[in-house]
Amino acid sequence: MGDWLDGLPLVDHHCHAIVGESRKADALGALRATSEAPGGYPLVDLVERPAWQAVLRVMERFAASPFRLTTGDVSVEGVTTLNWAEKTLSGVDYHRYCTDLFRAGGYAQLYVDGGYEPEGSVTLSNLARLSGASTRPILRLERLGEDQHTPGRSFDDWWERVTQRVRTAREEGYVAAKSIAAYRTGLHVQPVSLAEARAAYTRWGEPVSLQQVAPRLKDKALIDFLLWHTAPLLANQALPLQFHTGYGDPDTDLLQGNPLWLRGFLETFIPQGLAVVLLHTYPYHREAGYLASVYEGVYFDVSLIIPMGVSGARRVLAEALELTSYRRFLFASDAHTRPEMFLLAADTFRDALAHHFADAVLTHYVSPAVRERWAGLILHANARKLYLGEEE
Amino acid sequence: MGDWLDGLPLVDHHCHAIVGESRKADALGALRATSEAPGGYPLVDLVERPAWQAVLRVMERFAASPFRLTTGDVSVEGVTTLNWAEKTLSGVDYHRYCTDLFRAGGYAQLYVDGGYEPEGSVTLSNLARLSGASTRPILRLERLGEDQHTPGRSFDDWWERVTQRVRTAREEGYVAAKSIAAYRTGLHVQPVSLAEARAAYTRWGEPVSLQQVAPRLKDKALIDFLLWHTAPLLANQALPLQFHTGYGDPDTDLLQGNPLWLRGFLETFIPQGLAVVLLHTYPYHREAGYLASVYEGVYFDVSLIIPMGVSGARRVLAEALELTSYRRFLFASDAHTRPEMFLLAADTFRDALAHHFADAVLTHYVSPAVRERWAGLILHANARKLYLGEEE
Amino acid sequence: MGDWLDGLPLVDHHCHAIVGESRKADALGALRATSEAPGGYPLVDLVERPAWQAVLRVMERFAASPFRLTTGDVSVEGVTTLNWAEKTLSGVDYHRYCTDLFRAGGYAQLYVDGGYEPEGSVTLSNLARLSGASTRPILRLERLGEDQHTPGRSFDDWWERVTQRVRTAREEGYVAAKSIAAYRTGLHVQPVSLAEARAAYTRWGEPVSLQQVAPRLKDKALIDFLLWHTAPLLANQALPLQFHTGYGDPDTDLLQGNPLWLRGFLETFIPQGLAVVLLHTYPYHREAGYLASVYEGVYFDVSLIIPMGVSGARRVLAEALELTSYRRFLFASDAHTRPEMFLLAADTFRDALAHHFADAVLTHYVSPAVRERWAGLILHANARKLYLGEEE
Repeated sequence: MGDWLDGLPLVDHHCHAIVGESRKADALGALRATSEAPGGYPLVDLVERPAWQAVLRVMERFAASPFRLTTGDVSVEGVTTLNWAEKTLSGVDYHRYCTDLFRAGGYAQLYVDGGYEPEGSVTLSNLARLSGASTRPILRLERLGEDQHTPGRSFDDWWERVTQRVRTAREEGYVAAKSIAAYRTGLHVQPVSLAEARAAYTRWGEPVSLQQVAPRLKDKALIDFLLWHTAPLLANQALPLQFHTGYGDPDTDLLQGNPLWLRGFLETFIPQGLAVVLLHTYPYHREAGYLASVYEGVYFDVSLIIPMGVSGARRVLAEALELTSYRRFLFASDAHTRPEMFLLAADTFRDALAHHFADAVLTHYVSPAVRERWAGLILHANARKLYLGEEE
Repeated sequence: MGDWLDGLPLVDHHCHAIVGESRKADALGALRATSEAPGGYPLVDLVERPAWQAVLRVMERFAASPFRLTTGDVSVEGVTTLNWAEKTLSGVDYHRYCTDLFRAGGYAQLYVDGGYEPEGSVTLSNLARLSGASTRPILRLERLGEDQHTPGRSFDDWWERVTQRVRTAREEGYVAAKSIAAYRTGLHVQPVSLAEARAAYTRWGEPVSLQQVAPRLKDKALIDFLLWHTAPLLANQALPLQFHTGYGDPDTDLLQGNPLWLRGFLETFIPQGLAVVLLHTYPYHREAGYLASVYEGVYFDVSLIIPMGVSGARRVLAEALELTSYRRFLFASDAHTRPEMFLLAADTFRDALAHHFADAVLTHYVSPAVRERWAGLILHANARKLYLGEEE
Repeated sequence: MGDWLDGLPLVDHHCHAIVGESRKADALGALRATSEAPGGYPLVDLVERPAWQAVLRVMERFAASPFRLTTGDVSVEGVTTLNWAEKTLSGVDYHRYCTDLFRAGGYAQLYVDGGYEPEGSVTLSNLARLSGASTRPILRLERLGEDQHTPGRSFDDWWERVTQRVRTAREEGYVAAKSIAAYRTGLHVQPVSLAEARAAYTRWGEPVSLQQVAPRLKDKALIDFLLWHTAPLLANQALPLQFHTGYGDPDTDLLQGNPLWLRGFLETFIPQGLAVVLLHTYPYHREAGYLASVYEGVYFDVSLIIPMGVSGARRVLAEALELTSYRRFLFASDAHTRPEMFLLAADTFRDALAHHFADAVLTHYVSPAVRERWAGLILHANARKLYLGEEE
């Protein structure tokens, strides 16, 4: 499973935090973290997926359970595995368990999107302590807009505070910004006049108190305005802008999540020096690879499908790499909640990458030395350069 | 070719009837049944496809022809194979030939869509007799609407009769309903007011006599109305609703056949307990797998491309299974007209499934016992549970 | 790499001219010809693609360089390979080098689209001399429209001259027409009235002198009019109409380049006998294969992705062949500028085709003799029949 790549460290350019000690034995949380299905999705269906089977294997390998999970035994199927997982996880030294998993995965750095924080998840510094990897934050733009939307605040005041936070993002330690426009109003991001944005702000319901969370920002005019006018501020700081694209939870309309919709946005801001990162991309990873192959400053990954679509990892990764430069493709896990998903992402990705580099056509044309260098670019060097400005 | 799965019986949750004895030697019909090409498509092109070659192999194996088809001989190419097939089929004992083919395919049950009945095809009871499998009918909704559209009938009367038939479908023996909205007006099914439906009904031309077939129902308002208001009636009876999605004959606009268009429909009726089955799905099988992975009650298959796209069966099946739960994917042949296509579907599907379960990544994470159980779910158990309510 | 197909000659039904002697050592031009990236795309990214590595291998093999390119040596990476290539190419006998490459590729005929002529490229007769293959021209329709758009010319005069050229295309030696509507206004080609076309012509800016090139024809009404009314003229001469579809340089909006948009055009002109050829098609090659499988007179290829997406060649070709008749799929390189790309296209395509024909499912059902015949259809016979009317 990708042995020759084991020595190369990983930079995960898009992930979320894991849960803390108090939820270490939350097997149900672990199961739910193996897919994008919402809360109501039946457990009996969730357990019958390779991703859950693979998580069980990770637990077996690292939790040193005194309980039996006879993998060849049909009686341990299905939801009964949840009980096994709960008993097994109850006994682990969570800190050591986490460190072992992240180390086995070879994680050196984690760039963390705090826009989604699983219940009971740890802070960035605690994530660093548990994982043994350094951590850096990513600024979620729609969340920033919502956080700054306080009772009675005028549009001008709101916009000043939003842009002020974006303008100082790099100095505050952020390594990127991120947008989930795909979840709210789709990726056909277009220019919006100030007047339209003002009107949309007025339509937006207010929180009634400072304690209350603002209503969700889901107005296309306002989201597009936010993106169109923060893009240059990000470019000025050499801060990449990540977009959720492709599949996700059922909140997304996948017809609107095709990264090809971003064409107008790319044509406008790529020449201004903005770097745009297309996250996840499946099932539009070929389209993403095309965009990366013709636009300066477009990067992408196949996170989420790796690790959630375990059995497709080799094929999807190979498809993603058909057109792109190897300087435009990056590893990411998009993992959250559970350390097992981080290890599964790392193992599956390394295996898929090794398989790609063993392909008969590629080995016919590309020397081992070049293939090894390309592996390093994808696993860590591209991310360090793109987000931190570090040259190889 | 998938030997370890040979012992597992097949439930075909979507197929059509085959021709009777009188057309047993109709080689041209057999050739046309290997693709979705319309009547005018050139024979010289149809014969140069792997599906026809595979059908020839089935005939060689089961028809025990006294005539020679020297497979290594270039002289037996192309349209000359039609003559060979006709001579060969003329000699068979059709009943025995059919029974042999269905038995070799391992068919236990056939759920039959009577909305498309090939010329000269047999009844459901005769299909059961010829195949040795039990048969159950599927109710085609647009056809029901057309059948109830008699001269002079008012909208209210029509609608009462249509819904009455749907309301009693389960007790009349139907195991599912089916819509071909994708062929008529696309899958972007939306709510329609009663007034709009009434107006559409008025626009719909009438048959001039009871003997005449009604004009085709092809009004988007009326089809959407039909679907939107029969969906709850189906949910009440635990009757799944099958949709044609993806490719088919050139009557379909494939841009409108992407199952992602059904999002609004799913968001409305899945919470009401409706089970929706996405048929065929190619080339949108990954999109279908995504929908099945996040919506309770979404099921799908890759019928039609298996068996018609013989050479792609392994790849397409593997792609379809990347995200889904193995409880949401089902075998179907969508075969019609010829028993050879049923055997080809069964053989190709078993081979593809066995190949999937032999995948290096899957075998690394999933035990043989679990893989065998998953195979059983896909080949028969999912269908029995979904359509008949039978637990494993 | 596809040895058993080496003896079969190639007809390339869509390519462009290569540069002449004066640019033989233009390594930068060679690098840029390995992708669709525009001029501003960074060289450091372009070199980190398998296509450039493969071109280096071609140069090593045929240029007999006295300079070292130690392929196992990390020091020969990246942009330094450009220097090596320039030095190496400087020393070659260009005529012999070209002839060696085209001969190694097995090229017998080249059908050349003169609508894109690389800087410093040779004439058709010189291309024939350099390649050792015969050459035939393809008529680019939008370019014809622009060329006939001279100062002061009326719509009626313009249209008469355009159609006159189209009407006599076959006798002038053209073997096909080609449209790049996908690059200008998308593939949703629709009927346009004469009045609309007239109005669009009036809006179209004029060249100020005969020496000046006309402004780009980029009005949807006028392009659609041009296509809709030249289609019957092409059908009358049995001249196929090629469409750019799928990916290309960033001038294209890939959402508008899906060949499924052509449905209305196909439904109209296929019954009139027009042959339509879908070029490139990636990432819509499955959609193209579907169209070819149900419409008489639809043909397609996977040029451009083969050879530019070297590592995906086997997979993409296999996907393209899932549904189609083997009489509808053709080899093309879409190569331009450099002879190396022609050889790479030929080698990669032959390898992918051989790999396809060695597939376990295909070999199970299709005899070696039939597979060999199919290879010949794809490599040359389909093109000779479609463009020249030559029967096998």
